[in-house]
Amino acid sequence: MTLRGYFDNSATTRPCEEAVNAVNIALRECWGNPSSLHFKGTESERLLEDSRRSVASLLSCESEEIYFTSGGTEGNNLAVFGAAHKLRRNGNRIVSTSIEHPSVDEALTQLGREGFEIIRIKPDSFGRIAEEDIISAVNSDTILVTMMLVNNEVGSIIPVRAAKRAVTRAKAPALIHCDAVQAFGKIPVKPSQLGADIVTVSSHKIHGPKGVGAIYIKNGVKILPRAFGGEQESHIRPGTQAMPAVAGFGAAAEAIGDMKESLERVTLIRDHMLKRFEEIGGIRINSAPDALPYITNISVIGIKSEPMLNYLSSEGICVSSGSACSKGKRSRVLTEMGLDKEAMESPLRISFSRFTTKEETDRLVDAVASGKSGIRSK
Amino acid sequence: MTLRGYFDNSATTRPCEEAVNAVNIALRECWGNPSSLHFKGTESERLLEDSRRSVASLLSCESEEIYFTSGGTEGNNLAVFGAAHKLRRNGNRIVSTSIEHPSVDEALTQLGREGFEIIRIKPDSFGRIAEEDIISAVNSDTILVTMMLVNNEVGSIIPVRAAKRAVTRAKAPALIHCDAVQAFGKIPVKPSQLGADIVTVSSHKIHGPKGVGAIYIKNGVKILPRAFGGEQESHIRPGTQAMPAVAGFGAAAEAIGDMKESLERVTLIRDHMLKRFEEIGGIRINSAPDALPYITNISVIGIKSEPMLNYLSSEGICVSSGSACSKGKRSRVLTEMGLDKEAMESPLRISFSRFTTKEETDRLVDAVASGKSGIRSK
Repeated sequence: MTLRGYFDNSATTRPCEEAVNAVNIALRECWGNPSSLHFKGTESERLLEDSRRSVASLLSCESEEIYFTSGGTEGNNLAVFGAAHKLRRNGNRIVSTSIEHPSVDEALTQLGREGFEIIRIKPDSFGRIAEEDIISAVNSDTILVTMMLVNNEVGSIIPVRAAKRAVTRAKAPALIHCDAVQAFGKIPVKPSQLGADIVTVSSHKIHGPKGVGAIYIKNGVKILPRAFGGEQESHIRPGTQAMPAVAGFGAAAEAIGDMKESLERVTLIRDHMLKRFEEIGGIRINSAPDALPYITNISVIGIKSEPMLNYLSSEGICVSSGSACSKGKRSRVLTEMGLDKEAMESPLRISFSRFTTKEETDRLVDAVASGKSGIRSK
Repeated sequence: MTLRGYFDNSATTRPCEEAVNAVNIALRECWGNPSSLHFKGTESERLLEDSRRSVASLLSCESEEIYFTSGGTEGNNLAVFGAAHKLRRNGNRIVSTSIEHPSVDEALTQLGREGFEIIRIKPDSFGRIAEEDIISAVNSDTILVTMMLVNNEVGSIIPVRAAKRAVTRAKAPALIHCDAVQAFGKIPVKPSQLGADIVTVSSHKIHGPKGVGAIYIKNGVKILPRAFGGEQESHIRPGTQAMPAVAGFGAAAEAIGDMKESLERVTLIRDHMLKRFEEIGGIRINSAPDALPYITNISVIGIKSEPMLNYLSSEGICVSSGSACSKGKRSRVLTEMGLDKEAMESPLRISFSRFTTKEETDRLVDAVASGKSGIRSK
């Protein structure tokens, strides 16, 4: 099957040439264990630390604030459990939103079972979270505020910065965690500007390989590890580092280029797509007008997601019906947004990357249009 | 620096051509998210399931009994915590040995803090564990027996099979976990023959890429996950699978070849090496005569490990002073074996792979001999 259009970049991206080359260097040349003391070890350790610097640079932070993980899910679990368990004697409330990624949301459910009070702030009909709601949810008993920066299904931008104000105002002992997986590499993610103590990022959403991610932990902030044994990553995340993937991650971070320029180009393509969807008619845009233009959630009214997705796939075009992590299930994010029944049955998530072109987007729109008439008439 | 001899295969191995090629297919062609429903997803899912079958085949088990992890450390943590927490209402004792890998040992220390009774059976002076000690350690309150199959520092083979007899005899509710990381791909690891319910294996010790491993969980056995969010790996280990590494792991497992033939060849090389060490004199063999010949621990009496390791490294030869996971520290395994002070200060671990040649082993022995006189005379 020839790929005629790939619009599932929020699920995963195609590894860029720079990442593929770096992985191959780690496989063919620098394949030592970075913890080994001989020259094969030190050469691998250098590659590890180079990659750490590249990721740190994209986060505008220090190298030693970066801890490599196996990906976003592990990173979010480590951040949420590690912070909550570390601060359990300082308070009991955890503030979040009801539209987090499952790796945060289900970790919170588990913490709820352990006795923590979990507050999940609800979004508006576009998947946006109000600053006032963050401010009023945080009290002096709050030990953790955890919020994504960009929602993975509808692209809404969450005002994470309000968390810092809320924590200061409530004199809460809380750490602030931000799941920045969908924002990283697309808009500047600067922990200091976000007011975040911990930030989760992932490689395979920025054209790096799957199997690696990182968490930023602000210098001086302590969290508990989730795994034990081995001194790697300063005991925070033991286990031999996933070197080929780590090297690819570093290279992908370096290759990001001018995020502002990419955002402008992607915005134009998104606007063009929306205009064409409007011309076709019968397509509801579920994403907010001020959503990150990389993610657009639509409902093709009357056509259920699955047949449309299959039709598009048969045309060589990839979109998703929601998050890849909960395949086939009804979207919790869209439910929280209060979509009506018709729109709930037919969502499609169209997610761009900096490599998305206008031409392939036109092929997507054409295919949605033909799918719309073709499937309906069956 | 030219690599003239690599004898740190217990720390990590050079990825084989088959693994490197498979990684590249996953990076360049099958780069979709295996959870995605479109064709890029299903093509990646096929690669995932092919890899699962390859790993299952090497373990003589069913595909659905294999759960991919990020490596041995995560696998051991998941197995030990997942089993102990699952069975915490059935009993309180956990039986293990005092020479486990840190990822088991430190997980047990943590479980000890949580109130579990941890029994660590001590080895003899060769790092061997007596069957009788296993039998007598397991009582009816035992919920977990966790033992490595081959020790990572001295190569002793642990009679894991006795655990099953012990559990049956004591009528214990225990699950049996085996860390088979150092045995996998070298000797047959058949969970059913071992009597193990859970088995940990890793890719980068069998010439696959770092960043992936697997645990076998016997059909019907339930353990608790350590991370939440996402339905991958049947909820046992959520998060997008580390596809390039998973594909490489599968290929490495397929490429293992005839283990018996490799073992015979490696045994001959090991015996040749031991004979030459004996001729040189002043070298104590810390490994048991019946240790797995892939791992030989020696002490070059009078020459501390670090200068010898550095000298060998400067000669293009890689060995380690112990486990790569606890770099620089005094070996807990050798301490438990009761080595005398002289031998404790000078250990070297020489670990082979199926690709090790007699020629490079001769270069190692020559370099140890010249290091021995050179360093001493300084």
